[in-house]
Amino acid sequence: MNNTYPLIIVCAGAHQPSLYRLPEILAEYSEHFFIGVDRGALELVRANFPIDLGIGDFDSLAHREKLELQEKSKAWLEYPSAKDDTDTEIAFEWISQHYPQSDICVFGAIGMESRRLDHLIANLYLPYQPRFQDLFDHTYFVEENLRMAWYFPGDHILQAGPVLPDYLSVISLTPVKSLKIEGAKYNLASQDFDFPRALVSNEFIALNQPIHLSFKEGLILVIWMNEEERFV
Amino acid sequence: MNNTYPLIIVCAGAHQPSLYRLPEILAEYSEHFFIGVDRGALELVRANFPIDLGIGDFDSLAHREKLELQEKSKAWLEYPSAKDDTDTEIAFEWISQHYPQSDICVFGAIGMESRRLDHLIANLYLPYQPRFQDLFDHTYFVEENLRMAWYFPGDHILQAGPVLPDYLSVISLTPVKSLKIEGAKYNLASQDFDFPRALVSNEFIALNQPIHLSFKEGLILVIWMNEEERFV
Repeated sequence: MNNTYPLIIVCAGAHQPSLYRLPEILAEYSEHFFIGVDRGALELVRANFPIDLGIGDFDSLAHREKLELQEKSKAWLEYPSAKDDTDTEIAFEWISQHYPQSDICVFGAIGMESRRLDHLIANLYLPYQPRFQDLFDHTYFVEENLRMAWYFPGDHILQAGPVLPDYLSVISLTPVKSLKIEGAKYNLASQDFDFPRALVSNEFIALNQPIHLSFKEGLILVIWMNEEERFV
Repeated sequence: MNNTYPLIIVCAGAHQPSLYRLPEILAEYSEHFFIGVDRGALELVRANFPIDLGIGDFDSLAHREKLELQEKSKAWLEYPSAKDDTDTEIAFEWISQHYPQSDICVFGAIGMESRRLDHLIANLYLPYQPRFQDLFDHTYFVEENLRMAWYFPGDHILQAGPVLPDYLSVISLTPVKSLKIEGAKYNLASQDFDFPRALVSNEFIALNQPIHLSFKEGLILVIWMNEEERFV
């Protein structure tokens, strides 16, 4: 693809981010910029990726680990742990100032193996914040068995991806107007929802048959997902 | 406590529900009613609890497992797998018709070990549905390292619980008016939020020092949480 802007890779602090998925993603961009958020910086180094910027309070790391990472990072922004923003919010704030038009690929933001449900929710809530909304038009999250992206009002084509996922779930984060799903196993004629609604367990019919998603107002999260670990 | 209504225990379908936590919860009620949702029914039987009602499409179970569970259940409601509601929604629908005033304790609804992020979100979204809202005034979820409950506008006192949790997170599911947090490590003077906001990683100061939470409009989820497995 050779996109004009560098791909921003964010590795957040959840355990076991699926960085082994990264090479095939990097192949689509000529330039990359790696941000390690809190212990995500450690995960980048462990997976032999560089840290262009380390960011966070780093309170989950031992002092020696922190010094070593700081040494290996091209830039380093350390904050006190008692602060209003989460480490990931600080990273998105930085991106919105420096790379507002780049694609953003986030690892370690969901972390079903981590025990921090509150962090998971805080990361799912990022697109609610007006300061980040423009970024979420070109941000996606990757975990070992899923990929997720956000959609704003309009007509959208959802492709299955390299393999057929077991499920596609369409989740409104807000009330929505005229939500329509076409070309899926379970279609939806134009419908309004007055509150956030999780339409789970939909399916693609075939690899080469995209699903059409459209709506007139609101914000939607789409999750491509497998029950087993497999790239989607 | 000897509450007037039976405690309704719902075991939903996520892997490894923390049913070993149940005996100390049951001790507070003179009567109980066990609902096994989908493979949650299997988990109840494995943990030597009865199934008063088995509910779901049971598509995650082998045919033989299903027959065995059906045999062991006092009542059984089986639905086709292609349906608008999730299995958990069907269970809450049933509760709202039969036990609308009972306390409801839900296991296996979050399942960080499961790979179904969409199910997790669908369960977090249950209180958005007008048909379930009255139930969530007296519903709580239990997982191995956390407990969560919902709050409607008013003044509330949050107790630490049997042990001091590492974190208390206050998460608004809607815009909120005049949200105030007092008596916590990080307090909040009355503040409005125009969109859902996750205020994570707050802390109790001491076991015997409750946190006061108040707000005038909106819906709030509170999570008592540990980083390690420990009852809170």
